[in-house]
Amino acid sequence: MVLEKINQPNDIKKIPKEELPILAQEIRSFLIEKLSVTGGHLASNLGVIEMTMALHLVFCLPEDKILWDVGHQSYTHKILTGRKEGFDSLRKLGGLSGFPKREESACDVFDTGHSSTSISAALGIAQARDLKGKHYSVVAVIGDGSFTGGMVYEALNNASQSKTNFIIVLNDNGMSISENVGGFPSYLSTLRTNETYTSLKRAAEDVLRHSGGGEAAIRRIRGMKNNLKSMLIPGSFFEQLGIKYFGPIDGYNIDRMVTVFQNAQKVLGPVVVHVLTKKGKGYSPAERMPARFHGTGPFEIETGMPAKRKEKADWSDIFSTVMCKEGNRTLNLCAVTAAMPDGTGLKRFRGMYPDRFFDVGIAEAHAVTFCAGLAVGGMIPVFAVYSSFLQRGFDQIVHDVCLQNLHVIFAIDRAGLVGADGETHQGIFDLSYLTMIPNLCVMAPKNKWELADMLKWAIRKAQGPAAIRYPRGSAYDGLEEFRAPIRYGKWEILYDESDICLLASGSMVETAVEVRSMLKREGANCSLINCRFLKPLDEEVLREAALSHRLLVTMEENVEAGGFGSLVLSCLNDCGISVSLERIALPDMYIEAGSVDLLKEETALDAGSIYKRIRTRMIGLYG
Amino acid sequence: MVLEKINQPNDIKKIPKEELPILAQEIRSFLIEKLSVTGGHLASNLGVIEMTMALHLVFCLPEDKILWDVGHQSYTHKILTGRKEGFDSLRKLGGLSGFPKREESACDVFDTGHSSTSISAALGIAQARDLKGKHYSVVAVIGDGSFTGGMVYEALNNASQSKTNFIIVLNDNGMSISENVGGFPSYLSTLRTNETYTSLKRAAEDVLRHSGGGEAAIRRIRGMKNNLKSMLIPGSFFEQLGIKYFGPIDGYNIDRMVTVFQNAQKVLGPVVVHVLTKKGKGYSPAERMPARFHGTGPFEIETGMPAKRKEKADWSDIFSTVMCKEGNRTLNLCAVTAAMPDGTGLKRFRGMYPDRFFDVGIAEAHAVTFCAGLAVGGMIPVFAVYSSFLQRGFDQIVHDVCLQNLHVIFAIDRAGLVGADGETHQGIFDLSYLTMIPNLCVMAPKNKWELADMLKWAIRKAQGPAAIRYPRGSAYDGLEEFRAPIRYGKWEILYDESDICLLASGSMVETAVEVRSMLKREGANCSLINCRFLKPLDEEVLREAALSHRLLVTMEENVEAGGFGSLVLSCLNDCGISVSLERIALPDMYIEAGSVDLLKEETALDAGSIYKRIRTRMIGLYG
Repeated sequence: MVLEKINQPNDIKKIPKEELPILAQEIRSFLIEKLSVTGGHLASNLGVIEMTMALHLVFCLPEDKILWDVGHQSYTHKILTGRKEGFDSLRKLGGLSGFPKREESACDVFDTGHSSTSISAALGIAQARDLKGKHYSVVAVIGDGSFTGGMVYEALNNASQSKTNFIIVLNDNGMSISENVGGFPSYLSTLRTNETYTSLKRAAEDVLRHSGGGEAAIRRIRGMKNNLKSMLIPGSFFEQLGIKYFGPIDGYNIDRMVTVFQNAQKVLGPVVVHVLTKKGKGYSPAERMPARFHGTGPFEIETGMPAKRKEKADWSDIFSTVMCKEGNRTLNLCAVTAAMPDGTGLKRFRGMYPDRFFDVGIAEAHAVTFCAGLAVGGMIPVFAVYSSFLQRGFDQIVHDVCLQNLHVIFAIDRAGLVGADGETHQGIFDLSYLTMIPNLCVMAPKNKWELADMLKWAIRKAQGPAAIRYPRGSAYDGLEEFRAPIRYGKWEILYDESDICLLASGSMVETAVEVRSMLKREGANCSLINCRFLKPLDEEVLREAALSHRLLVTMEENVEAGGFGSLVLSCLNDCGISVSLERIALPDMYIEAGSVDLLKEETALDAGSIYKRIRTRMIGLYG
Repeated sequence: MVLEKINQPNDIKKIPKEELPILAQEIRSFLIEKLSVTGGHLASNLGVIEMTMALHLVFCLPEDKILWDVGHQSYTHKILTGRKEGFDSLRKLGGLSGFPKREESACDVFDTGHSSTSISAALGIAQARDLKGKHYSVVAVIGDGSFTGGMVYEALNNASQSKTNFIIVLNDNGMSISENVGGFPSYLSTLRTNETYTSLKRAAEDVLRHSGGGEAAIRRIRGMKNNLKSMLIPGSFFEQLGIKYFGPIDGYNIDRMVTVFQNAQKVLGPVVVHVLTKKGKGYSPAERMPARFHGTGPFEIETGMPAKRKEKADWSDIFSTVMCKEGNRTLNLCAVTAAMPDGTGLKRFRGMYPDRFFDVGIAEAHAVTFCAGLAVGGMIPVFAVYSSFLQRGFDQIVHDVCLQNLHVIFAIDRAGLVGADGETHQGIFDLSYLTMIPNLCVMAPKNKWELADMLKWAIRKAQGPAAIRYPRGSAYDGLEEFRAPIRYGKWEILYDESDICLLASGSMVETAVEVRSMLKREGANCSLINCRFLKPLDEEVLREAALSHRLLVTMEENVEAGGFGSLVLSCLNDCGISVSLERIALPDMYIEAGSVDLLKEETALDAGSIYKRIRTRMIGLYG
């Protein structure tokens, strides 16, 4: 095994050249084998093994800084920096993160998770390096999908002024998680297929390669610059933004990539190196179905089939079904996604109503304002988006949608704890950042039927902006017997007793049922209210509950600050009602990766912990 | 007066051609005269008078939809749609808004205020139009400055897929509020000065003009398309994104603009029309000092000098002074602005430490992550930004700065009510959206000395991310006698008495002093605590205060939901302390334009209203 020789950063530099392809193959097998057990981001990682090796052959870590945009493609980087042992605990609580983490290794320079941040961060690091008079290299590795995010252009626009060197490796696999969309991806595909262009570029690179490196090379490059510019990169997109461009380069030719990275290192100013890769490379199920193997659960290596069949419908599936049905009834219903037709469940809607489906690219900010435009034009747009990604559109929700009180619906998937993706993807802030916005109605369903009812209500009845948050994973199918019609701002009383009143929101209703059973088992009286509307609150029911119980308990899968419990407390205070209130919410911290169940235990959000907390509190109250 | 004939939309179409230049001149004089009294956005409006006239000559309002990016340049549009009478009450409470407002006129299609939203919204409206089978035109008017914002690229990338027509008028004056920065503006200036290019374009436009319009024109255009493409717009930036481009065109030649707009209307798919204008056109003080005349107060027409001399230093001035001094002491201090070197007061820092100053363009999202990169590289970045614009960087604060606990400082100017700019610019959400973020320390100074002390503390002592929010306008210079050293998370007790305890944050400390005087006058006992740290709260002092007073009153210039009062209430609840708490904060609504004093009265945030509220509450308490 060549892979056995890789135990710390830069070990790869000692591997004989002829063994590099073997190493690549071993890493490929290693990833497939490990991920078939743990799950993880497979397709993107298989695509960039050779490219990552070339980077590690050229750059010295941790002195040089490699930033991974999004970061889910950093597995080979983790292996090459001595972390292969960690892959058995990949994305588990306390285990190896699926993303770069500064805390995990000095070779991880910048934590990532969301798209399109790497060029901004790399530029900052490069500027800091120059100010400090240091000389390390800075490299941002970024996919073509991430290039549909606006931050990239903001960063390129800014970078072009800088005379300092840093390298942008454009990892072009022609995809986001799903197919790429838009003008820039089309432009890239022109580059990919332009033969004349490519051969001219190759000639230029040969000149660079044979110039011997060092100062001499830089002088020659400078001398050739204008020539090269007009000859080779006629009006390229990057050149027009003031950024140099090399490529496209075969992402499986390690030799060539090493040469080009070495040359890019010597050029003054920012450089884009355009590398062509293929998602899922070398594992045919992943090559065939890159979207399914973007983030995969455990699978059978031979067939690529999931190791476990899904038993229940996901929340996204429920959303998908309702959207498809509703599309037939509500002819001005539109669906919008930011590069997530698969994850959000909008793929079927796209198939049924292609004219009313819009994939805008990884561009949440634009997506929100685009929805505002659709609404002004008389359509009813539903923007389906993951909670943590919607943070990207915060100002647009405040400024473009809610200020004008437009009928835009936010279907917020992956709200609450999301599990394996960890800190960057937890959807634990949305209740806070949404309920503070005037005019916005915020809801969370207790079970799958309620998601359907809420979505229909939001489409058919809501007058202004409405948000519905629901979790990742299997949709809760209990409490079928409770299905009171949705009425604006009204909660649903599930059990009306006395003493303790559980005020549960969304996913926590399921937990509250458990907590209530525990309490009932020891004879306590316990009401349970499904607090469907987080904004506005049901002041009437809340007052009633406060006056008829000894202890109120709010339950939410969101941080405490500005969340549901805090709103309840404020409302009670404004009503002049003083009552014992226990607020169950997530602590004021980022929450690492792990299974949702374990994370709930860690954060005392599981039924057992909540039960104990209530019991302690009740003992306090009863003396 | 030709202007007298303009009383409703489309009246301009009845004006004889030869009178149009006279009308332009009258509008120019009208704006200078009116704004010399009321203040407002002068420079940008003087620049686009002719362009706006050309738009109104070609398009029919309100059927056709014109969207104004940012919207401060819409004054001529307001005049031409029958709102000239409103200019005496411009930007006053209940008066004419300084921005487009749907509530104000059917001719205002989309409310704006923040930059770079218009293309997203226009695309949405155009798509809705097509789905509804309607045929109106959609036009987004957007400055070259706004083109440095990432949303524009997200929108262009998305628009390029669309086969539907909408027109992007690129109003190119070579400036944001201050000088433009970056690769894209440089690219535009190449376009502006490229003579060959321009003359080729002109030839093509002539062909278009003489093609007679209608279907024939469209066929010819299609036929010529490939030819035109390679001949005229060789690899233009827009073409590479799949967007057609016409220009550049003289923004003071109404005839030419009318022709080009008419042609642009007929082309399939999105089109950019590049119009060259000049900020301040026709009024020499504004031409000479466009940044000062971007948003101006009342001024003397002859000299351009402000009608009133500034008597006190602004908060921005204090910030500016401290940054300049601190730059000399802390050699890794950097300053970052998103196109606001003037407004934020960083211009002097730029002059003194050009290497450590970064203007990144209108690109708040990038700015935040760029700061994260600088911090990782060992610098101490201070991002000076207006509160409402920082909303654009929300996800980046959560995901890039605070998650990594990086030492980045946010100097948040224009926090609280900002006055004349109205709904879109009020900085009334930051306490809510910042205090919910783990690891972030949030402060607000009571007076100018405290701003200095906090900024120094944040630079020299803070370990992680820190935010300081301060208002627009004159810095409070009272309470000089209170200057306890800043200690992390510790409040400052100004007056320690009993009964009532005012817990005031930032700007509200000044108000609290007044309220306290009123209460004292009638013999009440009243403590006053300067709650410098909004996160973390000073739990110790808060507990003490709660236990030793009958009534606590929190005071903040922020919305109630998730704000300071809500945090105090939550903290008390968690401590198991029950006390009467009155929370003074802004209501759950967008707050229109008006003087800050009037707005405070309207929202009951002035000393008189607060005093009355406390009095009522005390009567209730004492029975």
